[in-house]
Amino acid sequence: MPLELWNEGLAKSAILDFVKRVTDRDGPDFVPIPERIAVFDNDGTLWSEFPMQTQVFFLFDRLHQLAEVNPTLKDDAIFSAFFSGDNEKILALGKEGILKAFAATHAGMTEEAFGEVAQAWLKAAKHPDNHRLFANNVYQPQLELLEYLRENGFKTFIVSGGGLDLIRAFSEAAYGIPPEHVIGSSFRTELVEEGDGVTLTKTGELQSFDDRETKVVNIGLHIGRRPILVAGNSDGDFAMMRYALAGKGPSLALLVHHDDGEREFVYDRQFKLSALNEALDRADELGIKVISMKRDWQRIYP
Amino acid sequence: MPLELWNEGLAKSAILDFVKRVTDRDGPDFVPIPERIAVFDNDGTLWSEFPMQTQVFFLFDRLHQLAEVNPTLKDDAIFSAFFSGDNEKILALGKEGILKAFAATHAGMTEEAFGEVAQAWLKAAKHPDNHRLFANNVYQPQLELLEYLRENGFKTFIVSGGGLDLIRAFSEAAYGIPPEHVIGSSFRTELVEEGDGVTLTKTGELQSFDDRETKVVNIGLHIGRRPILVAGNSDGDFAMMRYALAGKGPSLALLVHHDDGEREFVYDRQFKLSALNEALDRADELGIKVISMKRDWQRIYP
Repeated sequence: MPLELWNEGLAKSAILDFVKRVTDRDGPDFVPIPERIAVFDNDGTLWSEFPMQTQVFFLFDRLHQLAEVNPTLKDDAIFSAFFSGDNEKILALGKEGILKAFAATHAGMTEEAFGEVAQAWLKAAKHPDNHRLFANNVYQPQLELLEYLRENGFKTFIVSGGGLDLIRAFSEAAYGIPPEHVIGSSFRTELVEEGDGVTLTKTGELQSFDDRETKVVNIGLHIGRRPILVAGNSDGDFAMMRYALAGKGPSLALLVHHDDGEREFVYDRQFKLSALNEALDRADELGIKVISMKRDWQRIYP
Repeated sequence: MPLELWNEGLAKSAILDFVKRVTDRDGPDFVPIPERIAVFDNDGTLWSEFPMQTQVFFLFDRLHQLAEVNPTLKDDAIFSAFFSGDNEKILALGKEGILKAFAATHAGMTEEAFGEVAQAWLKAAKHPDNHRLFANNVYQPQLELLEYLRENGFKTFIVSGGGLDLIRAFSEAAYGIPPEHVIGSSFRTELVEEGDGVTLTKTGELQSFDDRETKVVNIGLHIGRRPILVAGNSDGDFAMMRYALAGKGPSLALLVHHDDGEREFVYDRQFKLSALNEALDRADELGIKVISMKRDWQRIYP
C-alpha cells in the first residue's frame, strides 16, 4: 500500500485521489508524464526549520571557523548579530538578511569547494534541541510521498528560499532529488581561470531571493512548465500554490502545518523567519489541503 | 551498432571510446550515472543556423504580423532593420541586439501564450534556402548521439544563446529534451493576477544573454554539476568546453565544423552572428574533437 506512514484522513485521500486521476489514461484528468511536475519547498516542508533554518546554524558555525583565521570578522556589522549569541538579533535580520550574510561569508570559494565544506558540515552538525544530525531531521512521510510521486511518473523539484548550493549538497542523498532539480536562492557566480581551464567561483552578491512571487518566476526560468502539485508550509509558498491551482488541468496544493509539539515544533503565524498566515486563512477557499503533522503523519523522522 | 549515421573516423571513435570508459564500472574512468551530464549548444550544433538563426526568422515574421495590427511598429528604431529587408542591417545588430528586439516584441504575453505562438510558427515556417520546415533542419546524427548518450545513463541538456522559450517550444518533440533541461537566454518575467490565481508574463527586458562565460554561469545555476561532455560549434561555446575539460575526471568536448557546402553551409570565422575562431585554433592544444560535417556525418537532415 502506498503512503503507509500517512494516517487515513483528508490529506492522504486527497493525494491518493489526485495521483489516481492524473495517471488514469482513460479518465478526464489524465496528465502526460512529462507534465507531471511536482515542486516542494524545503525548510519546514521536507525537513525541520525551527527555531531557525539549518542554513542559519551552518552560517553560525562557518562564521566561528572563519573568525579563527580572521578575528576582525567579529567586528563586522553584518556578522555581529551571529557573534552576539542573541537569537532575537539573528531573527531580526530576516531570511533575506541572513542570506546576504551567508553569501558574503562564501565569496571567493569555488562551487565545488563550497560543496565539500557543506557536505562535511552536514555529516557532523546536530540540531541544538533534538540533538539529531540536521540531515536526519527530514520528514519520513514526505520521503515516502516523493518516492510515490516518482513511481507514478512525476518529476520532483525543490523550490526553496534557502541557498541553492547548501541544498544541493544533500538533496540527492536525502531526497533522491538531483542538483539540477533544486531551485533556490542563488548568489552570483563568476568564471575564473584555473590552470588550462576555468572554474566557477561564488561572489558575495545575492542574485535571487527565491521567496514568494520569485519562486514562481524561478519555476518559469528553471522548469518552464506550470507544476501540477505544490507542497509548502508558509506564506513564502503561497504564490506557487496559487500558480499551480490556476493551471488548466488538475492540480493539488499541500500545506504542511506545524502543530505537533511533542514530536516536532508548534509554530505558524508568529515565526519571524517564515510566517504562515495568508495561506492558512485562505486554504479552504482555494482548495489547499492542510497536512496536520500531528494527525496525518504516523512518524516524523526516520 | 551505435552511431550508424556517423562515418568511421576520429570523432566517432572518440565518442564511442569516451562512453565506453565512463560506463565501465570496473575501469578507472567510471562516472556514476547522476554525474553523466552532457550539454549541447543548439544553433549550429543541433540544427542549422545559417544564414541566420531560426529565431531571427521567427522574429521577422512576428514583427510583420504585429505591424499589421500596429503599423507604427515600422517606425521603431529597434525594429527598422527588420523591416528594411536588408540582411546586413539585421546582422549588424549582433546576436544580443536581436535578442533584445525579440524580448521587446513579446512583452506582456503569458509564457503559455508565447509557447502556443511559437509552436504554431514552427509547424509552418520554412527555411528560405533549403525550403524545409525549420523544425526539420535538425541534424540526424546528433539526434542519434543524444539518444545514444541517454541510453548510457547521460542526462542531456541544451545550453543555448537563443531565447529559452522558443527552444522549449520544440525541444521535447525534436530532441527528446524536456523544458527543464533547456538553458538559454532569458527575459525577465513577472507574476500577474489572473482570476483567482496567478500567471507568468514576459517583460521586454533581457535577463541573461546566455553566451560564452555566461553559459558556464548558467550551467552552475541550473545544473549545479560540471558537465563531462560538451558539444558546440562556435566561440560562444568555448568557455563551457574549457569548463568541462578542466573537470577532475574524464571529459569530452566536441566541436561541429560547418564544412559541407553541398549538404548544408560552409562558414566559421566570418559568421557575424556566431563566429568560430579561438575554439578552432586551440582545438588540438586542448583536446577538443572537431566534427567535420562533411566527413563524419553520413547524412545531415532526417
